[in-house]
Amino acid sequence: MRVRGEVVYDGSPFHGFAVNLGVRTVAGDLDAVLTRVLGSEVAVTCAGRTDRGVHAVGQVVSFDAPDGTNLESLRRSLNRLCGAAIVVGALTVVADDFDARFSATGRRYRYRVRNHPDPDPFSVSTAWHVPASLNVQSMATAARDLIGEHDFSSFCRRPRPAEGAPERNLVRRVESATWTGPDDDVLVFDIAASAFCHQMVRSIVGTLVDVGRGRIPVTGIPAILAAGDRRAAGEPAPPHGLTLWSVRYGPPPS
Amino acid sequence: MRVRGEVVYDGSPFHGFAVNLGVRTVAGDLDAVLTRVLGSEVAVTCAGRTDRGVHAVGQVVSFDAPDGTNLESLRRSLNRLCGAAIVVGALTVVADDFDARFSATGRRYRYRVRNHPDPDPFSVSTAWHVPASLNVQSMATAARDLIGEHDFSSFCRRPRPAEGAPERNLVRRVESATWTGPDDDVLVFDIAASAFCHQMVRSIVGTLVDVGRGRIPVTGIPAILAAGDRRAAGEPAPPHGLTLWSVRYGPPPS
Repeated sequence: MRVRGEVVYDGSPFHGFAVNLGVRTVAGDLDAVLTRVLGSEVAVTCAGRTDRGVHAVGQVVSFDAPDGTNLESLRRSLNRLCGAAIVVGALTVVADDFDARFSATGRRYRYRVRNHPDPDPFSVSTAWHVPASLNVQSMATAARDLIGEHDFSSFCRRPRPAEGAPERNLVRRVESATWTGPDDDVLVFDIAASAFCHQMVRSIVGTLVDVGRGRIPVTGIPAILAAGDRRAAGEPAPPHGLTLWSVRYGPPPS
Repeated sequence: MRVRGEVVYDGSPFHGFAVNLGVRTVAGDLDAVLTRVLGSEVAVTCAGRTDRGVHAVGQVVSFDAPDGTNLESLRRSLNRLCGAAIVVGALTVVADDFDARFSATGRRYRYRVRNHPDPDPFSVSTAWHVPASLNVQSMATAARDLIGEHDFSSFCRRPRPAEGAPERNLVRRVESATWTGPDDDVLVFDIAASAFCHQMVRSIVGTLVDVGRGRIPVTGIPAILAAGDRRAAGEPAPPHGLTLWSVRYGPPPS
Protein backbone atom coordinates (compact mmCIF):
# COMPACT_ATOMS: atom_id res chain seq x y z
CA MET A 1 0.00 0.00 0.00
CA ARG A 2 1.06 3.58 -0.63
CA VAL A 3 1.68 5.70 2.48
CA ARG A 4 1.84 9.46 2.80
CA GLY A 5 3.88 10.84 5.69
CA GLU A 6 4.40 14.29 7.17
CA VAL A 7 7.94 14.99 8.26
CA VAL A 8 9.52 17.77 10.34
CA TYR A 9 13.28 18.16 10.47
CA ASP A 10 16.00 20.46 11.63
CA GLY A 11 18.21 20.52 8.53
CA SER A 12 21.38 21.49 10.46
CA PRO A 13 22.92 18.03 10.80
CA PHE A 14 21.99 16.90 7.28
CA HIS A 15 23.59 17.33 3.87
CA GLY A 16 20.16 17.98 2.38
CA PHE A 17 17.15 15.77 1.83
CA ALA A 18 18.19 13.59 -1.11
CA VAL A 19 20.23 10.44 -0.60
CA ASN A 20 23.92 11.16 -1.15
CA LEU A 21 26.35 8.37 -0.47
CA GLY A 22 28.87 8.98 2.27
CA VAL A 23 27.03 11.85 3.97
CA ARG A 24 24.05 12.03 6.30
CA THR A 25 20.81 13.04 4.56
CA VAL A 26 17.17 13.10 5.63
CA ALA A 27 16.11 10.57 2.99
CA GLY A 28 19.11 8.40 3.81
CA ASP A 29 18.07 8.25 7.47
CA LEU A 30 14.35 7.72 6.66
CA ASP A 31 15.08 5.00 4.09
CA ALA A 32 17.41 3.16 6.46
CA VAL A 33 14.96 3.25 9.36
CA LEU A 34 11.93 2.31 7.20
CA THR A 35 13.86 -0.53 5.61
CA ARG A 36 14.87 -1.79 9.05
CA VAL A 37 11.35 -1.56 10.51
CA LEU A 38 9.44 -2.87 7.48
CA GLY A 39 11.97 -5.57 6.58
CA SER A 40 12.12 -4.70 2.88
CA GLU A 41 13.97 -2.03 0.90
CA VAL A 42 12.17 1.34 1.06
CA ALA A 43 12.99 4.58 -0.78
CA VAL A 44 10.94 7.66 0.05
CA THR A 45 9.85 10.33 -2.44
CA CYS A 46 9.44 13.89 -1.13
CA ALA A 47 7.45 16.96 -2.12
CA GLY A 48 10.39 19.37 -1.98
CA ARG A 49 14.06 18.36 -2.03
CA THR A 50 15.63 20.68 0.48
CA ASP A 51 19.31 21.62 0.23
CA ARG A 52 21.95 21.17 2.89
CA GLY A 53 21.03 23.10 6.06
CA VAL A 54 17.43 23.81 4.95
CA HIS A 55 14.68 22.84 7.40
CA ALA A 56 11.14 21.53 7.02
CA VAL A 57 8.08 21.72 9.19
CA GLY A 58 5.71 20.48 6.47
CA GLN A 59 7.67 18.11 4.27
CA VAL A 60 5.56 15.33 2.74
CA VAL A 61 6.93 11.96 1.70
CA SER A 62 5.41 8.89 0.05
CA PHE A 63 6.58 5.30 0.14
CA ASP A 64 5.23 1.75 -0.12
CA ALA A 65 4.61 -0.46 2.89
CA PRO A 66 3.26 -4.00 3.13
CA ASP A 67 -0.55 -4.09 3.11
CA GLY A 68 -1.99 -4.02 6.61
CA THR A 69 1.02 -2.31 8.20
CA ASN A 70 -0.07 -0.67 11.48
CA LEU A 71 0.78 2.95 10.74
CA GLU A 72 0.59 4.24 14.31
CA SER A 73 3.05 1.63 15.49
CA LEU A 74 5.23 2.29 12.42
CA ARG A 75 5.18 6.01 13.28
CA ARG A 76 6.24 5.28 16.86
CA SER A 77 9.09 3.07 15.67
CA LEU A 78 10.29 5.72 13.23
CA ASN A 79 10.30 8.42 15.89
CA ARG A 80 12.14 6.15 18.31
CA LEU A 81 14.83 5.33 15.73
CA CYS A 82 15.21 8.58 13.77
CA GLY A 83 16.88 10.72 16.42
CA ALA A 84 15.86 14.16 17.62
CA ALA A 85 16.41 16.02 14.33
CA ILE A 86 13.59 14.23 12.45
CA VAL A 87 10.01 13.85 13.65
CA VAL A 88 7.46 11.88 11.65
CA GLY A 89 3.92 13.24 11.96
CA ALA A 90 0.76 11.74 10.52
CA LEU A 91 1.07 8.62 8.34
CA THR A 92 -1.97 7.85 6.16
CA VAL A 93 -2.84 5.30 3.52
CA VAL A 94 -3.35 7.01 0.15
CA ALA A 95 -4.27 5.99 -3.40
CA ASP A 96 -1.66 3.88 -5.19
CA ASP A 97 -0.97 6.66 -7.66
CA PHE A 98 -0.22 9.27 -4.99
CA ASP A 99 3.30 10.62 -5.34
CA ALA A 100 4.55 13.16 -2.78
CA ARG A 101 6.34 15.07 -5.54
CA PHE A 102 4.15 14.80 -8.64
CA SER A 103 0.79 14.95 -6.86
CA ALA A 104 1.73 18.20 -5.10
CA THR A 105 0.09 21.30 -6.54
CA GLY A 106 1.77 23.92 -4.38
CA ARG A 107 4.63 24.54 -1.94
CA ARG A 108 5.09 27.25 0.62
CA TYR A 109 8.47 28.27 2.03
CA ARG A 110 9.37 30.54 4.90
CA TYR A 111 12.63 32.43 5.27
CA ARG A 112 13.72 34.10 8.51
CA VAL A 113 16.07 37.07 8.77
CA ARG A 114 17.36 38.29 12.11
CA ASN A 115 17.75 42.01 11.57
CA HIS A 116 19.66 43.35 14.56
CA PRO A 117 23.24 44.56 15.00
CA ASP A 118 23.99 41.61 17.31
CA PRO A 119 23.63 37.92 16.54
CA ASP A 120 21.25 35.75 18.60
CA PRO A 121 22.57 32.47 20.03
CA PHE A 122 19.10 30.89 19.81
CA SER A 123 18.55 31.41 16.10
CA VAL A 124 22.01 30.81 14.65
CA SER A 125 20.75 27.73 12.78
CA THR A 126 17.28 29.00 11.80
CA ALA A 127 17.66 32.66 10.76
CA TRP A 128 20.07 34.60 8.59
CA HIS A 129 21.72 37.31 10.66
CA VAL A 130 21.74 40.63 8.77
CA PRO A 131 23.23 43.33 11.05
CA ALA A 132 22.48 46.33 8.75
CA SER A 133 19.08 47.90 9.25
CA LEU A 134 16.67 46.80 6.49
CA ASN A 135 13.73 48.72 5.02
CA VAL A 136 11.02 46.07 5.29
CA GLN A 137 8.47 48.27 3.57
CA SER A 138 10.61 48.36 0.42
CA MET A 139 11.21 44.62 0.57
CA ALA A 140 7.46 43.98 0.84
CA THR A 141 6.72 46.32 -2.07
CA ALA A 142 9.40 44.80 -4.30
CA ALA A 143 8.18 41.27 -3.47
CA ARG A 144 4.79 42.04 -5.07
CA ASP A 145 6.45 42.17 -8.49
CA LEU A 146 7.31 38.48 -8.17
CA ILE A 147 3.65 37.45 -8.02
CA GLY A 148 2.23 35.82 -11.14
CA GLU A 149 3.78 33.73 -13.88
CA HIS A 150 7.37 34.61 -14.77
CA ASP A 151 10.51 33.03 -16.16
CA PHE A 152 12.64 32.79 -12.99
CA SER A 153 15.96 32.14 -14.79
CA SER A 154 17.49 35.13 -12.98
CA PHE A 155 16.68 33.50 -9.61
CA CYS A 156 17.52 29.86 -10.31
CA ARG A 157 20.51 27.63 -10.53
CA ARG A 158 19.94 26.28 -14.00
CA PRO A 159 20.32 22.51 -14.13
CA ARG A 160 22.76 21.37 -16.82
CA PRO A 161 20.55 19.64 -19.42
CA ALA A 162 21.47 16.11 -20.43
CA GLU A 163 23.31 15.83 -23.78
CA GLY A 164 20.85 16.67 -26.56
CA ALA A 165 17.96 17.38 -24.13
CA PRO A 166 16.11 20.70 -24.35
CA GLU A 167 16.79 23.38 -21.74
CA ARG A 168 14.63 23.11 -18.63
CA ASN A 169 11.70 25.45 -18.43
CA LEU A 170 12.10 27.84 -15.47
CA VAL A 171 8.68 29.46 -15.75
CA ARG A 172 6.87 29.32 -12.40
CA ARG A 173 3.71 30.86 -10.97
CA VAL A 174 4.22 32.64 -7.65
CA GLU A 175 0.93 32.84 -5.75
CA SER A 176 1.99 35.04 -2.85
CA ALA A 177 5.15 36.63 -1.48
CA THR A 178 4.98 38.65 1.74
CA TRP A 179 7.33 40.06 4.36
CA THR A 180 6.10 40.43 7.94
CA GLY A 181 7.79 41.75 11.05
CA PRO A 182 10.00 42.69 12.62
CA ASP A 183 8.74 40.55 15.47
CA ASP A 184 11.45 40.05 18.13
CA ASP A 185 13.93 41.43 15.55
CA VAL A 186 12.99 38.71 13.06
CA LEU A 187 11.63 39.42 9.55
CA VAL A 188 9.67 36.60 7.98
CA PHE A 189 9.29 36.02 4.24
CA ASP A 190 6.52 33.67 3.07
CA ILE A 191 6.31 32.61 -0.53
CA ALA A 192 3.93 30.19 -2.20
CA ALA A 193 4.09 28.80 -5.73
CA SER A 194 3.00 25.74 -7.64
CA ALA A 195 6.65 24.73 -7.72
CA PHE A 196 10.07 26.27 -7.28
CA CYS A 197 13.26 25.80 -9.22
CA HIS A 198 16.61 25.23 -7.56
CA GLN A 199 17.75 27.93 -5.08
CA MET A 200 14.83 30.12 -6.15
CA VAL A 201 13.68 31.14 -2.66
CA ARG A 202 17.20 31.84 -1.44
CA SER A 203 17.97 33.91 -4.56
CA ILE A 204 14.76 35.87 -4.14
CA VAL A 205 15.51 36.53 -0.45
CA GLY A 206 19.08 37.61 -1.21
CA THR A 207 17.73 40.02 -3.82
CA LEU A 208 14.97 41.41 -1.60
CA VAL A 209 17.42 41.92 1.27
CA ASP A 210 19.55 43.92 -1.20
CA VAL A 211 16.42 46.01 -1.83
CA GLY A 212 16.05 46.44 1.94
CA ARG A 213 19.68 47.61 2.16
CA GLY A 214 19.17 50.07 -0.69
CA ARG A 215 21.56 48.26 -3.07
CA ILE A 216 18.75 47.40 -5.52
CA PRO A 217 15.90 49.87 -6.18
CA VAL A 218 12.47 48.95 -4.87
CA THR A 219 11.24 48.98 -8.50
CA GLY A 220 14.11 46.78 -9.70
CA ILE A 221 12.46 43.34 -9.75
CA PRO A 222 10.82 43.48 -13.23
CA ALA A 223 14.18 44.31 -14.87
CA ILE A 224 15.90 41.48 -12.97
CA LEU A 225 13.20 39.02 -14.09
CA ALA A 226 13.51 40.29 -17.68
CA ALA A 227 17.31 39.92 -17.70
CA GLY A 228 17.08 36.12 -17.52
CA ASP A 229 20.55 36.16 -15.99
CA ARG A 230 21.57 35.19 -12.45
CA ARG A 231 24.10 38.01 -12.33
CA ALA A 232 21.21 40.50 -12.36
CA ALA A 233 19.90 39.16 -9.02
CA GLY A 234 21.45 39.34 -5.55
CA GLU A 235 23.56 36.58 -4.01
CA PRO A 236 21.44 33.69 -2.68
CA ALA A 237 20.69 34.01 1.02
CA PRO A 238 22.27 31.27 3.18
CA PRO A 239 20.35 27.98 3.48
CA HIS A 240 19.88 27.89 7.26
CA GLY A 241 17.18 30.63 7.24
CA LEU A 242 14.95 28.58 4.95
CA THR A 243 12.14 26.19 5.93
CA LEU A 244 9.79 24.20 3.71
CA TRP A 245 6.59 25.27 5.41
CA SER A 246 3.77 23.31 3.76
CA VAL A 247 2.76 21.39 0.64
CA ARG A 248 -0.61 21.53 -1.06
CA TYR A 249 -2.36 18.59 -2.70
CA GLY A 250 -5.54 19.44 -4.50
CA PRO A 251 -6.59 22.36 -6.66
CA PRO A 252 -4.81 25.71 -6.35
CA PRO A 253 -6.82 28.57 -4.84
CA SER A 254 -8.87 30.32 -7.54
CA MET B 1 36.58 51.08 36.38
CA ARG B 2 33.63 48.78 37.09
CA VAL B 3 31.73 47.56 34.02
CA ARG B 4 28.26 46.09 33.84
CA GLY B 5 27.55 43.78 30.89
CA GLU B 6 24.43 42.13 29.52
CA VAL B 7 24.98 38.61 28.29
CA VAL B 8 22.83 36.22 26.24
CA TYR B 9 23.79 32.56 25.93
CA ASP B 10 22.55 29.25 24.72
CA GLY B 11 23.42 27.05 27.70
CA SER B 12 23.55 23.81 25.68
CA PRO B 13 27.32 23.61 25.13
CA PHE B 14 28.21 24.76 28.65
CA HIS B 15 28.56 23.03 31.99
CA GLY B 16 26.79 25.93 33.64
CA PHE B 17 27.84 29.51 34.28
CA ALA B 18 30.37 29.21 37.09
CA VAL B 19 34.02 28.44 36.37
CA ASN B 20 34.68 24.75 36.77
CA LEU B 21 38.12 23.49 35.88
CA GLY B 22 38.31 21.03 33.01
CA VAL B 23 34.88 21.77 31.52
CA ARG B 24 33.55 24.56 29.35
CA THR B 25 31.55 27.16 31.27
CA VAL B 26 30.14 30.57 30.39
CA ALA B 27 32.25 32.37 32.99
CA GLY B 28 35.30 30.35 31.94
CA ASP B 29 34.89 31.53 28.35
CA LEU B 30 34.12 35.14 29.32
CA ASP B 31 37.04 35.35 31.75
CA ALA B 32 39.46 33.91 29.19
CA VAL B 33 38.36 36.26 26.43
CA LEU B 34 38.28 39.34 28.71
CA THR B 35 41.71 38.50 30.10
CA ARG B 36 43.06 38.14 26.57
CA VAL B 37 41.54 41.39 25.30
CA LEU B 38 42.23 43.54 28.38
CA GLY B 39 45.67 42.09 29.04
CA SER B 40 45.11 41.52 32.75
CA GLU B 41 43.39 38.80 34.75
CA VAL B 42 39.59 39.27 34.78
CA ALA B 43 36.94 37.28 36.70
CA VAL B 44 33.30 38.13 36.08
CA THR B 45 30.56 38.12 38.70
CA CYS B 46 27.02 37.27 37.55
CA ALA B 47 23.49 38.00 38.74
CA GLY B 48 22.27 34.41 38.54
CA ARG B 49 24.52 31.35 38.39
CA THR B 50 22.78 29.14 35.88
CA ASP B 51 23.21 25.36 35.97
CA ARG B 52 24.45 23.15 33.17
CA GLY B 53 22.14 23.43 30.12
CA VAL B 54 20.26 26.49 31.44
CA HIS B 55 20.07 29.49 29.08
CA ALA B 56 20.06 33.24 29.60
CA VAL B 57 18.69 36.12 27.60
CA GLY B 58 19.14 38.66 30.39
CA GLN B 59 22.17 37.62 32.40
CA VAL B 60 24.09 40.51 33.92
CA VAL B 61 27.78 40.40 34.78
CA SER B 62 30.18 42.85 36.36
CA PHE B 63 33.95 43.06 36.12
CA ASP B 64 36.79 45.55 36.32
CA ALA B 65 38.51 47.02 33.27
CA PRO B 66 41.32 49.56 32.97
CA ASP B 67 40.07 53.16 33.18
CA GLY B 68 39.31 54.59 29.76
CA THR B 69 38.70 51.23 28.08
CA ASN B 70 36.62 51.77 24.92
CA LEU B 71 33.57 49.68 25.74
CA GLU B 72 32.12 49.49 22.24
CA SER B 73 35.36 48.17 20.83
CA LEU B 74 35.66 45.79 23.82
CA ARG B 75 32.15 44.54 23.09
CA ARG B 76 32.99 43.91 19.44
CA SER B 77 36.14 42.01 20.40
CA LEU B 78 34.23 39.88 22.89
CA ASN B 79 31.59 38.99 20.33
CA ARG B 80 34.22 38.14 17.74
CA LEU B 81 36.07 35.85 20.15
CA CYS B 82 33.27 34.29 22.21
CA GLY B 83 31.73 32.04 19.57
CA ALA B 84 28.08 31.81 18.53
CA ALA B 85 26.72 30.54 21.86
CA ILE B 86 27.49 33.75 23.82
CA VAL B 87 26.52 37.26 22.77
CA VAL B 88 27.55 40.27 24.84
CA GLY B 89 25.00 43.11 24.73
CA ALA B 90 25.36 46.54 26.27
CA LEU B 91 28.48 47.29 28.33
CA THR B 92 28.24 50.31 30.62
CA VAL B 93 30.45 51.94 33.20
CA VAL B 94 28.86 51.70 36.66
CA ALA B 95 29.65 52.80 40.21
CA ASP B 96 32.64 51.06 41.77
CA ASP B 97 30.42 49.35 44.33
CA PHE B 98 28.10 47.79 41.71
CA ASP B 99 28.11 44.01 41.93
CA ALA B 100 26.04 42.03 39.41
CA ARG B 101 25.02 39.60 42.15
CA PHE B 102 24.68 41.62 45.32
CA SER B 103 23.25 44.77 43.73
CA ALA B 104 20.46 42.80 42.03
CA THR B 105 17.06 43.18 43.68
CA GLY B 106 15.11 40.74 41.52
CA ARG B 107 15.40 37.93 38.99
CA ARG B 108 12.90 36.64 36.48
CA TYR B 109 13.08 33.18 34.94
CA ARG B 110 11.11 31.64 32.10
CA TYR B 111 10.49 27.92 31.66
CA ARG B 112 9.14 26.42 28.42
CA VAL B 113 7.19 23.17 28.16
CA ARG B 114 6.34 21.66 24.80
CA ASN B 115 3.02 19.95 25.45
CA HIS B 116 2.31 17.81 22.41
CA PRO B 117 2.41 14.04 21.83
CA ASP B 118 5.33 14.46 19.37
CA PRO B 119 8.68 16.09 20.05
CA ASP B 120 9.75 19.14 18.02
CA PRO B 121 13.22 19.14 16.43
CA PHE B 122 13.49 22.93 16.76
CA SER B 123 12.98 23.13 20.51
CA VAL B 124 14.86 20.08 21.77
CA SER B 125 17.37 22.26 23.59
CA THR B 126 15.01 25.02 24.79
CA ALA B 127 11.78 23.33 25.92
CA TRP B 128 10.92 20.32 28.06
CA HIS B 129 8.87 17.88 26.00
CA VAL B 130 5.86 16.62 28.01
CA PRO B 131 3.75 14.35 25.74
CA ALA B 132 0.81 13.91 28.16
CA SER B 133 -1.90 16.54 27.91
CA LEU B 134 -1.59 19.09 30.73
CA ASN B 135 -4.34 21.09 32.42
CA VAL B 136 -2.82 24.59 32.17
CA GLN B 137 -5.69 26.11 34.10
CA SER B 138 -4.87 23.97 37.16
CA MET B 139 -1.18 24.75 36.83
CA ALA B 140 -1.90 28.50 36.73
CA THR B 141 -4.20 28.25 39.76
CA ALA B 142 -1.71 26.21 41.79
CA ALA B 143 1.10 28.63 40.90
CA ARG B 144 -0.73 31.45 42.67
CA ASP B 145 -0.10 29.75 46.03
CA LEU B 146 3.64 30.27 45.54
CA ILE B 147 3.30 34.05 45.53
CA GLY B 148 4.47 35.84 48.65
CA GLU B 149 7.10 35.06 51.24
CA HIS B 150 7.59 31.37 52.00
CA ASP B 151 10.26 28.95 53.16
CA PHE B 152 11.07 27.15 49.90
CA SER B 153 12.94 24.22 51.50
CA SER B 154 10.61 21.81 49.70
CA PHE B 155 11.68 23.24 46.36
CA CYS B 156 15.40 23.71 46.89
CA ARG B 157 18.55 21.73 46.88
CA ARG B 158 19.78 22.62 50.32
CA PRO B 159 23.45 23.59 50.32
CA ARG B 160 25.47 21.61 52.86
CA PRO B 161 26.44 24.16 55.53
CA ALA B 162 30.10 24.49 56.38
CA GLU B 163 31.15 22.75 59.60
CA GLY B 164 29.62 24.64 62.51
CA ALA B 165 27.84 27.18 60.27
CA PRO B 166 24.11 27.75 60.66
CA GLU B 167 21.73 26.28 58.08
CA ARG B 168 21.08 28.51 55.09
CA ASN B 169 17.87 30.44 55.10
CA LEU B 170 15.63 29.33 52.22
CA VAL B 171 12.91 31.93 52.73
CA ARG B 172 12.26 33.78 49.46
CA ARG B 173 9.62 36.24 48.24
CA VAL B 174 7.98 35.24 44.98
CA GLU B 175 6.54 38.33 43.24
CA SER B 176 4.70 36.65 40.38
CA ALA B 177 4.27 33.17 38.91
CA THR B 178 2.17 32.73 35.77
CA TRP B 179 1.54 30.13 33.09
CA THR B 180 0.57 31.27 29.60
CA GLY B 181 -0.21 29.31 26.45
CA PRO B 182 -0.40 26.97 24.80
CA ASP B 183 1.01 29.01 21.93
CA ASP B 184 2.29 26.75 19.13
CA ASP B 185 2.01 23.86 21.65
CA VAL B 186 4.35 25.62 24.08
CA LEU B 187 3.39 26.52 27.66
CA VAL B 188 5.40 29.30 29.24
CA PHE B 189 6.00 29.73 32.97
CA ASP B 190 7.29 33.10 34.17
CA ILE B 191 8.38 33.55 37.75
CA ALA B 192 9.89 36.58 39.46
CA ALA B 193 11.42 36.79 42.92
CA SER B 194 13.98 38.84 44.78
CA ALA B 195 16.22 35.79 44.65
CA PHE B 196 15.96 32.04 44.09
CA CYS B 197 17.62 29.16 45.85
CA HIS B 198 19.27 26.32 44.00
CA GLN B 199 17.03 24.39 41.57
CA MET B 200 14.00 26.29 42.87
CA VAL B 201 12.46 27.14 39.48
CA ARG B 202 12.99 23.63 38.11
CA SER B 203 11.49 22.07 41.25
CA ILE B 204 8.50 24.37 41.06
CA VAL B 205 7.96 23.58 37.37
CA GLY B 206 8.26 19.83 37.96
CA THR B 207 5.66 20.13 40.73
CA LEU B 208 3.27 22.31 38.72
CA VAL B 209 3.52 19.94 35.74
CA ASP B 210 2.53 17.16 38.16
CA VAL B 211 -0.49 19.30 39.02
CA GLY B 212 -1.23 19.63 35.29
CA ARG B 213 -1.04 15.84 34.94
CA GLY B 214 -3.37 15.32 37.90
CA ARG B 215 -0.72 13.67 40.09
CA ILE B 216 -0.78 16.51 42.63
CA PRO B 217 -4.06 18.28 43.53
CA VAL B 218 -4.48 21.85 42.38
CA THR B 219 -4.78 22.87 46.05
CA GLY B 220 -1.63 20.94 47.03
CA ILE B 221 1.00 23.68 47.03
CA PRO B 222 0.46 25.04 50.60
CA ALA B 223 0.97 21.55 52.08
CA ILE B 224 4.12 21.02 50.01
CA LEU B 225 5.50 24.38 51.18
CA ALA B 226 4.60 23.52 54.79
CA ALA B 227 6.31 20.11 54.60
CA GLY B 228 9.77 21.67 54.31
CA ASP B 229 10.89 18.47 52.59
CA ARG B 230 11.98 17.98 49.00
CA ARG B 231 10.20 14.61 48.86
CA ALA B 232 6.87 16.44 49.09
CA ALA B 233 7.50 18.25 45.80
CA GLY B 234 7.71 16.85 42.27
CA GLU B 235 10.96 15.91 40.53
CA PRO B 236 12.84 18.95 39.21
CA ALA B 237 12.07 19.67 35.55
CA PRO B 238 15.09 19.25 33.21
CA PRO B 239 17.47 22.22 32.90
CA HIS B 240 17.21 22.84 29.14
CA GLY B 241 13.69 24.37 29.39
CA LEU B 242 14.92 27.12 31.73
CA THR B 243 16.11 30.61 30.80
CA LEU B 244 17.26 33.45 33.06
CA TRP B 245 15.03 36.12 31.57
CA SER B 246 15.95 39.38 33.29
CA VAL B 247 17.54 40.89 36.36
CA ARG B 248 16.31 43.92 38.24
CA TYR B 249 18.54 46.56 39.85
CA GLY B 250 16.68 49.16 41.84
CA PRO B 251 13.70 49.04 44.14
CA PRO B 252 11.18 46.18 43.87
CA PRO B 253 7.72 47.10 42.55
CA SER B 254 5.52 48.31 45.40
